[in-house]
Amino acid sequence: MEKTMPKARKRRRRRRDRGSASDTVLKITQPLFNVPPYDLVDAEKLQLIHHKSMQILEEAGIAFYDDEAQAILSRHGVKVVDDIAYFDRGLIMEYIAKAPSQFTWSARNPERDVIIGGKHVCFGPVAGPPYVVDRDHGRRQSTHQDLINFLKLTQLSPYLHSAGSETVVSSDIPIEYRHLELMYAHLIYGDKPVMGVYHTGEIGQDSIELAKIAFGVEAMAQKHYLHCIVNVSSPRRLDDRMLSLMIAYARNNQIINVTPFILSGAMGPVSILGTVAQLNAETLAGIVFAQMIVPGTPSVYGSFQAVIDLQSGAPVFGAPESQLALYLSGQLARHYGLPFRAAGAYASSKIIDAQGGYESVMSMLPSLFAQPNFILHAAGWLEAGLSAGYEKFILDCELLGMYHTYLKGINWDEDEWAMDAILDEVPPGGHHLGTSHTQRHFRSAFYRAEMFDYDSGEGWLAKGAMDVYKRANKTYKQRLQEYEQPPLDPAIEEALRAYIEKTTAD
Amino acid sequence: MEKTMPKARKRRRRRRDRGSASDTVLKITQPLFNVPPYDLVDAEKLQLIHHKSMQILEEAGIAFYDDEAQAILSRHGVKVVDDIAYFDRGLIMEYIAKAPSQFTWSARNPERDVIIGGKHVCFGPVAGPPYVVDRDHGRRQSTHQDLINFLKLTQLSPYLHSAGSETVVSSDIPIEYRHLELMYAHLIYGDKPVMGVYHTGEIGQDSIELAKIAFGVEAMAQKHYLHCIVNVSSPRRLDDRMLSLMIAYARNNQIINVTPFILSGAMGPVSILGTVAQLNAETLAGIVFAQMIVPGTPSVYGSFQAVIDLQSGAPVFGAPESQLALYLSGQLARHYGLPFRAAGAYASSKIIDAQGGYESVMSMLPSLFAQPNFILHAAGWLEAGLSAGYEKFILDCELLGMYHTYLKGINWDEDEWAMDAILDEVPPGGHHLGTSHTQRHFRSAFYRAEMFDYDSGEGWLAKGAMDVYKRANKTYKQRLQEYEQPPLDPAIEEALRAYIEKTTAD
Repeated sequence: MEKTMPKARKRRRRRRDRGSASDTVLKITQPLFNVPPYDLVDAEKLQLIHHKSMQILEEAGIAFYDDEAQAILSRHGVKVVDDIAYFDRGLIMEYIAKAPSQFTWSARNPERDVIIGGKHVCFGPVAGPPYVVDRDHGRRQSTHQDLINFLKLTQLSPYLHSAGSETVVSSDIPIEYRHLELMYAHLIYGDKPVMGVYHTGEIGQDSIELAKIAFGVEAMAQKHYLHCIVNVSSPRRLDDRMLSLMIAYARNNQIINVTPFILSGAMGPVSILGTVAQLNAETLAGIVFAQMIVPGTPSVYGSFQAVIDLQSGAPVFGAPESQLALYLSGQLARHYGLPFRAAGAYASSKIIDAQGGYESVMSMLPSLFAQPNFILHAAGWLEAGLSAGYEKFILDCELLGMYHTYLKGINWDEDEWAMDAILDEVPPGGHHLGTSHTQRHFRSAFYRAEMFDYDSGEGWLAKGAMDVYKRANKTYKQRLQEYEQPPLDPAIEEALRAYIEKTTAD
Repeated sequence: MEKTMPKARKRRRRRRDRGSASDTVLKITQPLFNVPPYDLVDAEKLQLIHHKSMQILEEAGIAFYDDEAQAILSRHGVKVVDDIAYFDRGLIMEYIAKAPSQFTWSARNPERDVIIGGKHVCFGPVAGPPYVVDRDHGRRQSTHQDLINFLKLTQLSPYLHSAGSETVVSSDIPIEYRHLELMYAHLIYGDKPVMGVYHTGEIGQDSIELAKIAFGVEAMAQKHYLHCIVNVSSPRRLDDRMLSLMIAYARNNQIINVTPFILSGAMGPVSILGTVAQLNAETLAGIVFAQMIVPGTPSVYGSFQAVIDLQSGAPVFGAPESQLALYLSGQLARHYGLPFRAAGAYASSKIIDAQGGYESVMSMLPSLFAQPNFILHAAGWLEAGLSAGYEKFILDCELLGMYHTYLKGINWDEDEWAMDAILDEVPPGGHHLGTSHTQRHFRSAFYRAEMFDYDSGEGWLAKGAMDVYKRANKTYKQRLQEYEQPPLDPAIEEALRAYIEKTTAD
């Protein structure tokens, strides 16, 4: 086949795969689920889970530790006693129905806007690790330069559609204004949709103010530029940090993603059904509250579940039980007609060895079967989320590239049957290498993973027997060299810096 | 949790995971698909594929390069012209209906009999590589000692239910009687179901004769002890080696597994639909022929498909296109009511690095969604099947262990809701570590992958920062130490040796 592939095509392919800033980033297209979702259980069994969740909401309730939030709940007919809100199931369904089933998450560059909901999926990088790891320097505390590096790699990858949030912690920046520098970096180094910083209402408000400078006050009022994760502190608890954040985001027309984090055996029961019922109750309570603040607030049904290792208490990602729980969460989100968030290329491994590889697909592929509309932590995640790996990031992006092809599903064009080749051109024992069908289609056939080695054993040995860790190490450094900053009006940059100076001076 | 787990339990668990011959092997249970299969397309689209396959069988036909085979076909109403058999679709469906939808594959130890068909799945190790690789010695030609080692590791793993066939090539044994020593080793070193050697009818017959000595002539007539893979030499060709093998197996009541091997772009079109239609036609033709030799012959619908790298011509395993093709093959096999074979923990990687990890799950998990009844190559496969990895074997078995849990699906016992814990015992923000529900269930909760590291980053560093390749290297050597040969009547062993001496002397 080597000879039949025109040179221009090869060059184009190489350029795309390397991901140079000049052309690749423009080619992003958010994939669609052109394959059906996986329904683990039938409608009747799903109703059973729904009913158990309703029982939890009605009888056990959810704690809302914030006066303003309690006032909002009471005003909307929720019974609040001793900080605990008891939700009637009719009320739950009434307010869930107010949440849009699909909306646009806007980017600085409108060509990079993404749709959250329906058949659309959006991938984002890992968020939150305080450590980074690479092959040269091992594991170390992450710095602001690491954050910038990951923002650059995110901007360069055609398979990440959002820049996520706080890819790694800028531990060398004082905590008081770290969130400002973080938000600034997100706004400067890339032009894909950003999440903002969302630890508390106050921090969330700073993100909103910076976004107003970057995108304009009017645009922020009309569009959804920011996206926060509201972490339900499971079991059954929303604290004042999260509640004030929700109020700030809802009142500013921005996206609220309600995601309980449950380690089954610790924040939830040691069983799949109990965990999913509790998780469902918690997520729905959060979304209902968002709709009570401002009806129509873009809201996402989040699910983040792992199990604990019953010997050490450590979190275990990619466990078989988690895969099953994920399918149920996906079915529930579809049942409620809500955009769904799940993740990601999870791994408990400390480095991107074979364990890291196994675990990543064991998390990522089940997630695709559950069909989330937003997959955060889709690249770079290691050490149960405590570490971001440079090489892991590159390899996960490769995986996402494959899934871009996978999600296209079957092409039903008549020519895909290749009947002219099968019936007329190729005799028994012949080959399809030179058929006219192959000539017509080889250009678009088969995704090629550039980071994977498909050479013969001998060829691989002759080239130095490099494992994929070494290859990805070379690639991430090359990519950082290739990065070009997307243009931004200097006046905006200046105004952002002025806001940061003013706020840190206060 | 550490403290709450009784010591006896820990010991038991450790023993099971290590897999010592004395107890572990006894605990094998073949898993059931307690999760639904994945239907990629609806019934109407599936019929389209069926019709294209029928068109191929009727209009292009399948070459049968063997006089006796052609005579059998003609006798049963198949039109044969110039070595090519043209199958009428009515005849295809009539003979497919004669194949049993489920049967037992018998083992030397009847406790290890497996069921092939229905909701049952049977895992077997890699078969066929001429190379082995491990962390100490790298890649090298495999020897008979390597074969024996892999047979021992297979016998020890509670997650492999069959010993497969020729795990690696015994390159240090002259080719004329290699198949005899291979079959002998299979019969001696383990007591799980074996496949026999199946390169030609003559070689197949030798396996059958040795099996008659090991299992008894009468038992062989009544049960199915051997299992051969009939490789359709795609496109559309069955040669005299495969056809004489089929005739020998069918006449001796043994299992015939018809598996085309198609690299899309070479032995089949560069499209998914064309490949699947051709593969389906080839498999059905083989099974129909088996039923014409002896009606009711236990037959398996096999699918083995990868794509070629259009830059180098090398096979690519775990490609997105292959995953989609696999779901279609699974649907077709279910549609015809035939036991289904697919595989496996495929990898193109030369070693078990992250690429090997990603690729293995990218092949294995889609396979489980397609619900094969027999998954050969489920452990050890590297380098597109040219190499068997010792450490890869250990890690793939770990993966299979996880899938044993995964396939159990959801437990619907009332206590799984944990409502006493959620509603009464655990307050908002509390934890489930000590609930009575956790106490009742932690013993059976959560599969634990022994080879995977779930420690903290600091703990992992303190223990020497071993990657999983190192850990698996230790484990495979430990296991080989622990192996104990399952008892066999010395008279049988002697008779097997006598047959081999006699045959090699001829």
